[in-house]
Amino acid sequence: MNIEHFLTNANPSWMQYESDSDIVISTRIRLARNIANVRFPISFTEQDAEQIEHQLMNALLAINRENPNRFSYFKVKDMPHLQRQILVEKHLISPNLARRQKIGAFFLTEDESISILVNEEDHIRIQSLAQGMNLQQAYAEAKKVDRYLSKSIAYAYEDRYGYLTSCPTNVGTGLRASVMLHLPVLTMTKQMNALIQMMTRLGMVVRGIYGEGSDNLGNVYQISNQITLGKSEEVILQELEKVVEQIIQKEQLARKNLLLRAPAVLEDRLSRSLGTLKYAKILTSEEAASCLSNVRLGVSLGLLEPISQRKLNECMLIMQPGLIQQYAGATLQSTERDMYRAKLLQEKLNEQTSNNGEKGEDSYDV
Amino acid sequence: MNIEHFLTNANPSWMQYESDSDIVISTRIRLARNIANVRFPISFTEQDAEQIEHQLMNALLAINRENPNRFSYFKVKDMPHLQRQILVEKHLISPNLARRQKIGAFFLTEDESISILVNEEDHIRIQSLAQGMNLQQAYAEAKKVDRYLSKSIAYAYEDRYGYLTSCPTNVGTGLRASVMLHLPVLTMTKQMNALIQMMTRLGMVVRGIYGEGSDNLGNVYQISNQITLGKSEEVILQELEKVVEQIIQKEQLARKNLLLRAPAVLEDRLSRSLGTLKYAKILTSEEAASCLSNVRLGVSLGLLEPISQRKLNECMLIMQPGLIQQYAGATLQSTERDMYRAKLLQEKLNEQTSNNGEKGEDSYDV
Repeated sequence: MNIEHFLTNANPSWMQYESDSDIVISTRIRLARNIANVRFPISFTEQDAEQIEHQLMNALLAINRENPNRFSYFKVKDMPHLQRQILVEKHLISPNLARRQKIGAFFLTEDESISILVNEEDHIRIQSLAQGMNLQQAYAEAKKVDRYLSKSIAYAYEDRYGYLTSCPTNVGTGLRASVMLHLPVLTMTKQMNALIQMMTRLGMVVRGIYGEGSDNLGNVYQISNQITLGKSEEVILQELEKVVEQIIQKEQLARKNLLLRAPAVLEDRLSRSLGTLKYAKILTSEEAASCLSNVRLGVSLGLLEPISQRKLNECMLIMQPGLIQQYAGATLQSTERDMYRAKLLQEKLNEQTSNNGEKGEDSYDV
Repeated sequence: MNIEHFLTNANPSWMQYESDSDIVISTRIRLARNIANVRFPISFTEQDAEQIEHQLMNALLAINRENPNRFSYFKVKDMPHLQRQILVEKHLISPNLARRQKIGAFFLTEDESISILVNEEDHIRIQSLAQGMNLQQAYAEAKKVDRYLSKSIAYAYEDRYGYLTSCPTNVGTGLRASVMLHLPVLTMTKQMNALIQMMTRLGMVVRGIYGEGSDNLGNVYQISNQITLGKSEEVILQELEKVVEQIIQKEQLARKNLLLRAPAVLEDRLSRSLGTLKYAKILTSEEAASCLSNVRLGVSLGLLEPISQRKLNECMLIMQPGLIQQYAGATLQSTERDMYRAKLLQEKLNEQTSNNGEKGEDSYDV
């Protein structure tokens, strides 16, 4: 599979998600693994790196033979800056890997649900993305690849600790489980700071999911486990699930209260955001994300005309700087991007209006 | 003609105006007259007032017999507050007359182009409204009524001064000529203060035309002559016309410059205003006026979809607090008005979209 497929597909199957609620967007699982008796990336040689990539290629070729959702292989070296940026925006590779000059590679399944980062901070990082709240499924998918690789690769593992990793914060299970949550009303009503402190005490980490600008761009937060050592994978997933469920309830309660207290003010605010998306001619990513968040909330509360979550997910994705330029087919300066962003989102949203609730299987290619 | 006609008609014929430019909105002429040998309103008795009203009624009944555009007669006394407010918003009576408890009356022609205020500051004030830049026509209409009245009424007049009035600033011609100008770019680029100073030096007065809130609500300015004494009516009108032409040229130049300098920023700003008008659920008169001004400019510059000036004039009119309540058919608190204003303007603008460029003769009745 060509890299173009991954650059232009704005609707990977794991993102084609429609649920009753707009709060949970997606789930991510990441397993960190290293190969026994090979130096960690922090100190290894280019030869070590080549050797590891080779080993993984052979293992994954075997998977590809048995699996319809095949892995494609890409080297970071020589990849143009824009392509790397787009893959980061799509959460397929890490910003860390994208910055590499020489060493580093990755494997992607056709449906983009699984990516394997090679020679990033660890030799191997298996990432699995799933729609909605799907910790168990995403973990099962990552574990399947992990088991498969372990057939031909000897992992660095010690009975006392578990999996060994470059950074001590990953030692043990090597598991980082994350849920992406859309929390506009907790943000609007300034409850997030207290909640983040509470979650930190419970061993969770809260981050924004977009790199550029505000760290909670679009009111989307990534909540993940801090601790990887001394707990089983099962317990880590259960604990995260419990915390996330509490946060969802808090957001739902905050929405109910806001609707009771100031329904007209809320409707005005959310409807104006739709107006801005449909009429602005210059839109920064911050403003676009904020408006899309409001529209997502408004649709969810039934205050705005229905727009599918799939369409809103797509808008959140394509409005990012790298993808904007991919769509425009040109390198654009900041203001040009803001102009093209307004145009592109208007096209998407108008397409939506005339084709409401459409739920095709086809991905949108530029 | 019933008062209801004047309260509900949002499209008097003098407002059904379409021109190449959105800059000149309308023209107003006002002649101040007093009856000889009767005390001025500042010191007269109720009996004097009754007497004057009677005299005018008889004179105008004679006009009505000969003229298809007939005068209707209304007393201010006992008129509900909301009705007075609406007549002020429509510029048919003055705020001063609207505040009266006992004394005061007015005559209106069916097409609302001429109103005669009785026992306001002067015994008689003849007002003529015309669309666009029409000083000569508006003056001719007012003068026609003035001549007619002078047949049966002896005016207070002295050869040395001219017409005598309550306030010395009106002595002489008793003529106040005004042109209503939409000057969004001179306002936006902060050139108005200097221009107002310049116009003051040339003997002109610059005011906003709406009472509520900002004095240049909607970037509409009323430019009129300050001096009524020592100049003929012809000269007063010519001088005003010359100044107004200069202001129009300055606004046109400012628009050209802004379009050259920052076309995208301007288009963004104007288009967002249309978005706000179409999507806001709560709209103050200040914001509505500002957005309507931007839309008027955007349509005029060809940056926005065409919307008729007649429709925009109607929107500017009906968004005022009194008319909003007339449309709603209920007394509304401030926030309720802001909600109804948003709803009403959206109905108007959407009606426009599906019925573009329509130029009927019919007035819009509630």
